[in-house]
Amino acid sequence: MIKITLPDGSIKEVAKNSTPMDVAKSISEGFARNVISAKFNNVTVETSTELTEDGSLLLYTWKDSEGKKAFWHSSAHLLAQAILNFYPNAKLTIGPAIENGFYYDIDFGDDTLSDNDFKKIEDKMIEFARQKFEFKLRAISKADALQYYKEQHNEFKVELIENLTDGEITFCDHADFTDLCRGGHIPNTGFIKAVKIMSVAGAYWRGDEKNKQLTRVYGISFPKQKELTEYLHLLEEAKKRDHRKLGKELELFTFSQKVGQGLPLWLPKGAALRERLENFLKKAQKKAGYEMVITPHIGQKELYVTSGHYAKYGEDSFQPIHTPKEDEEFLLKPMNCPHHCEIFNTKPYSYKDLPKRFAEFGTVYRYEQSGELHGLTRVRGFTQDDAHIFCTPEQLDQEFKNVIDLVLYVFSCLGFENFSTQVSIRDMDNLDKYIGDVETWEIAEQAIINAAKDKGLDYVIVEGEAAFYGPKLDFMVKDALGRSWQLGTIQVDYNLPKRFDLTYKGADNQLHRPVMIHRAPFGSMERFIALLLEHTGGNFPLWLMPEQVILLPISEKYEKYSKKVLQLLENYEIRGLIDDRNEKTGKKIRDAEVTKIPFMIIIGEDEENTETISVRKHGGEDLGKMTIEAFSSLVSKEINSTLQEFKFN
Amino acid sequence: MIKITLPDGSIKEVAKNSTPMDVAKSISEGFARNVISAKFNNVTVETSTELTEDGSLLLYTWKDSEGKKAFWHSSAHLLAQAILNFYPNAKLTIGPAIENGFYYDIDFGDDTLSDNDFKKIEDKMIEFARQKFEFKLRAISKADALQYYKEQHNEFKVELIENLTDGEITFCDHADFTDLCRGGHIPNTGFIKAVKIMSVAGAYWRGDEKNKQLTRVYGISFPKQKELTEYLHLLEEAKKRDHRKLGKELELFTFSQKVGQGLPLWLPKGAALRERLENFLKKAQKKAGYEMVITPHIGQKELYVTSGHYAKYGEDSFQPIHTPKEDEEFLLKPMNCPHHCEIFNTKPYSYKDLPKRFAEFGTVYRYEQSGELHGLTRVRGFTQDDAHIFCTPEQLDQEFKNVIDLVLYVFSCLGFENFSTQVSIRDMDNLDKYIGDVETWEIAEQAIINAAKDKGLDYVIVEGEAAFYGPKLDFMVKDALGRSWQLGTIQVDYNLPKRFDLTYKGADNQLHRPVMIHRAPFGSMERFIALLLEHTGGNFPLWLMPEQVILLPISEKYEKYSKKVLQLLENYEIRGLIDDRNEKTGKKIRDAEVTKIPFMIIIGEDEENTETISVRKHGGEDLGKMTIEAFSSLVSKEINSTLQEFKFN
Repeated sequence: MIKITLPDGSIKEVAKNSTPMDVAKSISEGFARNVISAKFNNVTVETSTELTEDGSLLLYTWKDSEGKKAFWHSSAHLLAQAILNFYPNAKLTIGPAIENGFYYDIDFGDDTLSDNDFKKIEDKMIEFARQKFEFKLRAISKADALQYYKEQHNEFKVELIENLTDGEITFCDHADFTDLCRGGHIPNTGFIKAVKIMSVAGAYWRGDEKNKQLTRVYGISFPKQKELTEYLHLLEEAKKRDHRKLGKELELFTFSQKVGQGLPLWLPKGAALRERLENFLKKAQKKAGYEMVITPHIGQKELYVTSGHYAKYGEDSFQPIHTPKEDEEFLLKPMNCPHHCEIFNTKPYSYKDLPKRFAEFGTVYRYEQSGELHGLTRVRGFTQDDAHIFCTPEQLDQEFKNVIDLVLYVFSCLGFENFSTQVSIRDMDNLDKYIGDVETWEIAEQAIINAAKDKGLDYVIVEGEAAFYGPKLDFMVKDALGRSWQLGTIQVDYNLPKRFDLTYKGADNQLHRPVMIHRAPFGSMERFIALLLEHTGGNFPLWLMPEQVILLPISEKYEKYSKKVLQLLENYEIRGLIDDRNEKTGKKIRDAEVTKIPFMIIIGEDEENTETISVRKHGGEDLGKMTIEAFSSLVSKEINSTLQEFKFN
Repeated sequence: MIKITLPDGSIKEVAKNSTPMDVAKSISEGFARNVISAKFNNVTVETSTELTEDGSLLLYTWKDSEGKKAFWHSSAHLLAQAILNFYPNAKLTIGPAIENGFYYDIDFGDDTLSDNDFKKIEDKMIEFARQKFEFKLRAISKADALQYYKEQHNEFKVELIENLTDGEITFCDHADFTDLCRGGHIPNTGFIKAVKIMSVAGAYWRGDEKNKQLTRVYGISFPKQKELTEYLHLLEEAKKRDHRKLGKELELFTFSQKVGQGLPLWLPKGAALRERLENFLKKAQKKAGYEMVITPHIGQKELYVTSGHYAKYGEDSFQPIHTPKEDEEFLLKPMNCPHHCEIFNTKPYSYKDLPKRFAEFGTVYRYEQSGELHGLTRVRGFTQDDAHIFCTPEQLDQEFKNVIDLVLYVFSCLGFENFSTQVSIRDMDNLDKYIGDVETWEIAEQAIINAAKDKGLDYVIVEGEAAFYGPKLDFMVKDALGRSWQLGTIQVDYNLPKRFDLTYKGADNQLHRPVMIHRAPFGSMERFIALLLEHTGGNFPLWLMPEQVILLPISEKYEKYSKKVLQLLENYEIRGLIDDRNEKTGKKIRDAEVTKIPFMIIIGEDEENTETISVRKHGGEDLGKMTIEAFSSLVSKEINSTLQEFKFN
């Protein structure tokens, strides 16, 4: 008998050589039917692997990301099997699971694969899948493995095997299909009920452009047809909400090859949207006792050597800026904190002056390879809604909680109800990765956990995710399509105050070291606006909309009254525009629907005579005729339903 | 007889060999008494130089800058004469007039000159001056000139003479003093009635640190004692108002050696002041149809090669930023215009869409040598209140006038009543210095002159002062001490639209080239705030003041009511703070005077009981007791007296 420890701490005694599936069945037959992969003593195993010693066992279903990984990796085998059925001379290389689905890189020789071939391969995959072929892992000697692939003239697999140590090589068989594979499969192909080949793309062998170009076939699979349908629908929705597409349609931002990739140019409507967001946060921050500062986008290299950022970012980021006459080196700032430390250092503080809270919409620069750039979410320069709080150790707890309050306020006003948090602490096995000493790290980590607990946050603690200079609390927001976005971060830092020798005079008349908190509720303006676009599909909260109303005079005759109405609305701080095209009202309404403007105001003879407006909501609801005052209070009411005042104690 | 043309175009016939002074006397004896220097056919001459041919003559008095130049250059001779009187072994080198006064670089050998020696030299200068020694220029052969200075062992003058062409060498004598000199003197030393040696400093011979260090003696002189007194008073005032000093005292900005010289860090009060200025301009610009955009602080080198800025600034400014992996080169942006051109290029325009007016508080970077840096007026990165107007040629006139209106509005709200303007056009003798073709330059120059005329501006046209890419209108503001500051610029540009191939579709359905206007009413936020500080001595217009009121509870008992009052004032958008120190009210009032806060509010029992406040103005005026509402409308009224609404047609 061997002892198997389950995740809940319970121990099962089972016969030696039992498999994970045996253990699953011993828990419940129903549960076992859903088990598709396993880890034993933290190593991925097959559900059919015989366990020969005591250890801890994790059993995964489709709901677990490890389960999906096995599912999709197994599907890659199935894909390869189906492809070889049609293209027997195709040479397989590698076929891993990815975040959504899997791919297989294949050398098709003289053949090519096009969209038209997808259907037959999908059908063949399902045909094979239904036969419930079991995935069986077997060890093989290096010599035999090489022999196998040399006979197939597959130089790629030969190269892979040559780099492996003898004794750790395994093949995986299902039906008559064999592949070099480390393992991690579902029990049999029968679990795979729906497949879709998503696309093909070129990919160099081993990612090196000097090597042969292969065909990467992307696919996804599901245990239910319905899930595939939903996934494809979500994808369609995501495409419609792609912030790059919406950003262009709504004229919010653009990129210019001449200015440079990854450097967004904010167009008037986008700049105004961004300013509204900034003003919203500024107002709350003012209430919370923050003071705005402005610092340059560059600093001397020495500044970042002092802060430690040069060691972290220097080599891999934008290179130093030299001057023509003097021996000086500047860097685009990778972080705002060193600048704020220098501001703190401008004058002496007593403990009574603390906390000092310096806020700045500060732009920082990081080099990203052009292939990694993506719209506003992966850029080379971005503006953080940054602030640094310098406080006494005694104030840390309260300050941390205040920041959580501010973040929750921001989420609430912007309609993010679905979020979770993560406390990122050190990787306890690699303590030398972190700068600063052990005791201060421990105090900081505990302060974050306390605050998260106290504020009733849904949090997980993750080892090894802390920044090199301190532990942090991250907020992950789920958007309307259920996708997770990492947003604001709150970070405790005992390190920079030391490096910049920051001090304050305590009640004891001695100099003490302040604690620093870094925080950014939005994270970056660019990324946050991308999220807002994809979350709302461009239907921003009313207070943020570039235009809140569109006026549709039913003929030229009513343009004058329309202009008067627009002026009156502007006095109520309602933003709008007039569609004065010479078009039928029906057409104007249809076109206005496309613009996502929340309210249409139709203006004709009756409205002019009675000094009223007819209001229609985006989406079709007719609100009828009303006075401008009534409309203005309707708008105010809707705005106030999301945009509350920030309460700061 | 020869014909002498005077500046008013009139022609005087005088005998050949008449002097400029003869001509002056022929105009009027009274005028002639004030004439101190002259130019004949655009060459500086002595008032005693004999004129031998027809030509145009300019006669200068102390009021002219050319007159001052001759006055101060002559004073340098007088200084040298007095110094040789006390230090006969001193070796003279060069002694030019400068913006305010003159200097002489002298090798004192083993002697040194200190503050204590100034008085005796000044006295000796006045003693010599009273003797009305005439300045007499005489030609001398190179050999004789060399001989003269070799005998004096003055290797400096020898070196100077060796570099001169024989035939153009002149000496200037007055009394027994002789100096190598090109000329440009006042008639005699008697005009110099007041002198002051300002300071001494080290200066390398020919500005090269490899050469011998000389002593530079700075001095200034005036035709009246009263003018010297006034000048010294002004200097004292300017010292008090030095924006670097006030900026520190008022905690507006700071510099950090670690961040880098010439890169201001805006402290909370300064950042808030700057934001108020920006919001003020944003509001007016919105009315005038501008749209805000946001562009990155860097751009690819190619962008500025396209714009022509690289050719202009590239070599002498911050050097390109390289990336670690890709072959890309970025530059800190020297100008915002290329970015705005790229924004214009985002979509096609019809003539009906124009003008487009893109505005941005855009930060630009220029390398300045550290020795050239000066507070906020000479920095390495500064934020322009920039905007670019893209219009049709037909709209240029009106747009240019609209910009003038905006600039005049800004000046009026900020209390600058004393200003002049300059139309900067090409140097007609160096037309190849300018990019773009001749006809477009001519149209642009004429448009500016028309607008200046139409708006009734006090303007001068200056040849050779245009930017390399277009002509401009500059605004020069006189501050409270009478010093001139170059501020906002409005610039027509036919060049960038061509370089960026900007187009719009005209009514004729053909593509046309828009005209561009660059403009910045403040110029740069940094420089403008420096000016505001020096102009107002920190007593900003009320709407700009960091704090508008200071509350002085007469004892701890009234702190609670003070806090309530502050809260109520904040509801009226009045900024204030409480002096809750445990000090006597008299002391609090005296200290409050120093802070320049415009209103003090004294709070005691009576005020608390009657829910009122006692108000005292900065400077001492007692406004008595009033309600908070009354005070708020008093503040509003004072603000509205300077801060009008911008009217845009």
